[in-house]
Amino acid sequence: MRPTTSKRTTRAQSSTADPAALATTLAERRPEDIVDLLNQNKSGFVAAVLLALPEAKAVAVLDQPRLRHGAGIVSMMPPDRAARLLDQMSADRVADVVREMRVSVRNDLLVLVGAETKSALESLLPYPEDCAGAIMTTEFVAVPSDWTVEQVLAHVRAVEHTRETVYAIYVLDPQHGALRAAVPLRRLIGADPKGNVLGAAADLQPLAIAPDAPLDEALRLISKYNLLALPVVDVEQHLIGIVTVDDAVDTLVARQNAEVQHFGGMEPLSEPYMRIGFFELLRRRAGWLCALFLAEMLTASAMQTYEAELEKAIVLSLFIPLIMSSGGNSGSQATSLMIRALAVREVHLGDWWRVMLRELPTGIFLGAILGVLGATRIAAWQLLGLFDYGLHWMLIALTIAVALVGIVTFGSLTGSILPFILKRLGFDPATASAPFIATLVDVTGIVIYFTTASVILRGTLL
Amino acid sequence: MRPTTSKRTTRAQSSTADPAALATTLAERRPEDIVDLLNQNKSGFVAAVLLALPEAKAVAVLDQPRLRHGAGIVSMMPPDRAARLLDQMSADRVADVVREMRVSVRNDLLVLVGAETKSALESLLPYPEDCAGAIMTTEFVAVPSDWTVEQVLAHVRAVEHTRETVYAIYVLDPQHGALRAAVPLRRLIGADPKGNVLGAAADLQPLAIAPDAPLDEALRLISKYNLLALPVVDVEQHLIGIVTVDDAVDTLVARQNAEVQHFGGMEPLSEPYMRIGFFELLRRRAGWLCALFLAEMLTASAMQTYEAELEKAIVLSLFIPLIMSSGGNSGSQATSLMIRALAVREVHLGDWWRVMLRELPTGIFLGAILGVLGATRIAAWQLLGLFDYGLHWMLIALTIAVALVGIVTFGSLTGSILPFILKRLGFDPATASAPFIATLVDVTGIVIYFTTASVILRGTLL
Repeated sequence: MRPTTSKRTTRAQSSTADPAALATTLAERRPEDIVDLLNQNKSGFVAAVLLALPEAKAVAVLDQPRLRHGAGIVSMMPPDRAARLLDQMSADRVADVVREMRVSVRNDLLVLVGAETKSALESLLPYPEDCAGAIMTTEFVAVPSDWTVEQVLAHVRAVEHTRETVYAIYVLDPQHGALRAAVPLRRLIGADPKGNVLGAAADLQPLAIAPDAPLDEALRLISKYNLLALPVVDVEQHLIGIVTVDDAVDTLVARQNAEVQHFGGMEPLSEPYMRIGFFELLRRRAGWLCALFLAEMLTASAMQTYEAELEKAIVLSLFIPLIMSSGGNSGSQATSLMIRALAVREVHLGDWWRVMLRELPTGIFLGAILGVLGATRIAAWQLLGLFDYGLHWMLIALTIAVALVGIVTFGSLTGSILPFILKRLGFDPATASAPFIATLVDVTGIVIYFTTASVILRGTLL
Repeated sequence: MRPTTSKRTTRAQSSTADPAALATTLAERRPEDIVDLLNQNKSGFVAAVLLALPEAKAVAVLDQPRLRHGAGIVSMMPPDRAARLLDQMSADRVADVVREMRVSVRNDLLVLVGAETKSALESLLPYPEDCAGAIMTTEFVAVPSDWTVEQVLAHVRAVEHTRETVYAIYVLDPQHGALRAAVPLRRLIGADPKGNVLGAAADLQPLAIAPDAPLDEALRLISKYNLLALPVVDVEQHLIGIVTVDDAVDTLVARQNAEVQHFGGMEPLSEPYMRIGFFELLRRRAGWLCALFLAEMLTASAMQTYEAELEKAIVLSLFIPLIMSSGGNSGSQATSLMIRALAVREVHLGDWWRVMLRELPTGIFLGAILGVLGATRIAAWQLLGLFDYGLHWMLIALTIAVALVGIVTFGSLTGSILPFILKRLGFDPATASAPFIATLVDVTGIVIYFTTASVILRGTLL
């Protein structure tokens, strides 16, 4: 009953170079599983396989957002065949594919597609990637508010196979076409056939979103209100599209992958780890790693200014890794907290000073806890005779403790405020914060540490 | 048309201590928005508000997974009222609430609830938190395969208001009750009323999952196959529940929050940042921070063993932060890559050696790139007269370059293998990897650095 995706079989099949033979063995499989297999092949081969598949199946495969290089695949087909497939695909997916095409190919194809596809593309293509309009589809069911339940059901039956979802039916004002209600199909089939469609509607104004609203806001509404589809309306409340829950799920999953990879300090991979080329993998990782390395070179410069202090008190160098990692850890903790709080809207840009007011005492407390631990460690090693920190070991312990309070407080404050600054400047905090904070806190940590030392140890070690 | 959640108004309302008055102003709001407001109040007050609301609205509010302390709220109601509300809630949510109750309260209530609720609880409660059974609901529509379309539609109309979803209808074998097909409602309403229900089914065996399968697997299937609901079947293919897409979305969103916070090295917060108590916030952050600090103390121990080398060549200490951060960065990069690859099943536990075979050359290459950058930096500063690294500056540059190759390679290898080990031992790699890898790589980085130095600089500086 589980999906039978035997990797071994599909790989063996894909190595047979005959697209027609492969198409025959694939015809009975689910489109999602066919995608898994085709993704391992070159665009030209995939195009040939799709052309050899029954047309409905080829359309179902092309409709999958997980199919890679969709634009390249379609570009390799004879234009008339390509146009016929595009005409049958769901509008939002056609827009995704066409968006990636070279302009010359795109223009050739747009002459050949049907009027409906063309008008859908005209309304979908203009939206930039990160807004609700970019993942909406125009294939929804809308009816005038003076229809009966019976009329609506007949209409649903007629258009069912060309609509992305029919489970939410949108009721429009018959005069100005403004969105008045959303009717769930489940309510409709139980309602009096002769009654007005509005009788089956929820009594509230439906939730809706503007096409240029952030994608995040669409995801938040769908998740919070458990919607199967969210209407997208223009300023005059005309329904121009819907965002469906399955696109929301796909976006959430893709975003989760990208977020973890960003957090790990790299460009998200476009292909699975095992399949991506060696040099492509290297390129995606080397960029960030080099940027971080160049930034961290500042730590060497910072250290150089304290060479005199280090020569006098070599013991100070022993704690540099410990001090630096504490600053980094407290900073990335505060950063990850704020990234989430901003993303789920628990805090807003204007709340930055409230956050600072919480982080200041939190940082001091956390730093004090670590400071006590650090000083205890030094005292324990000294008194147990495990290591000799010299005559002034108590002052050294004090230096470590005070420096930790300073560094953890600084880390918490910078870590929490940085996502606000990045967001204000128009960057995505999740992408940019982690590397920034590490470098910033490391360099400052060195400065705080040696400044503390020069105050406490003046006249004794320094 | 947007949801009008004016924070100011709702906060003002919640400060009026009269639950009945508040209930009156809330009665017309969406349940999701009522939850936002009630979450700011104590359980006793929330119970009183819910009892004063119209019963259907109270049920809708209790049905929201985002409502906090559901068990506490229900426990504070008179048992007969509580039981009546539970009877009307969706089965999976009742199970979530009852799971959190103190045993005494739970037993009192279970005597009072209806037979249907009781049997739903009996089948839902046994499943542990991280398996498909834990988020499934028993409120699905199932019909025998010898029914006509007309019969099924009549049944759907009759049970619609007590089912979580009616958009997927499950067709069972009339003899043994095994799941035979899933029929989308949209297909059914267009089908011939007199025809057999199986005529409207997709031709393939429906996807299904076992109740003890990992929750992740359910999420993966729902997301990959764009399902509105995934059937859960026992070993004899009897349908025992369904996992709906809205629960999958809720789980994805909650998990994303937890993952980023884990990655930042802390226990995920149970409440929004701005509302959580100061000491609770401290507790969640201090735990990890202290654990990391204690582990990082090993760096001080490692440094102590190289005190003699440091005294002879103080210049070596200048590059410690740079070297350590490079190891940490390459390690966390490799870790985050593998966490994702394992989570989305691009790689499997048995692939560990294949991953090592990729990471070894990748690490050497990345290390070499950083090594060249580092050596160039030293040469540049020396030749431009910005800093004097002494007579043997070329050997120092060589030491840094070689150490970087070793550390980045080690970081990439350990970082990529650690998620495999943690997963094999039964831990969640996403939760546990980040802190482990930092400490491991930091300590080893020091050892690699000084070992390299002692080989290259022997007879000159050391």
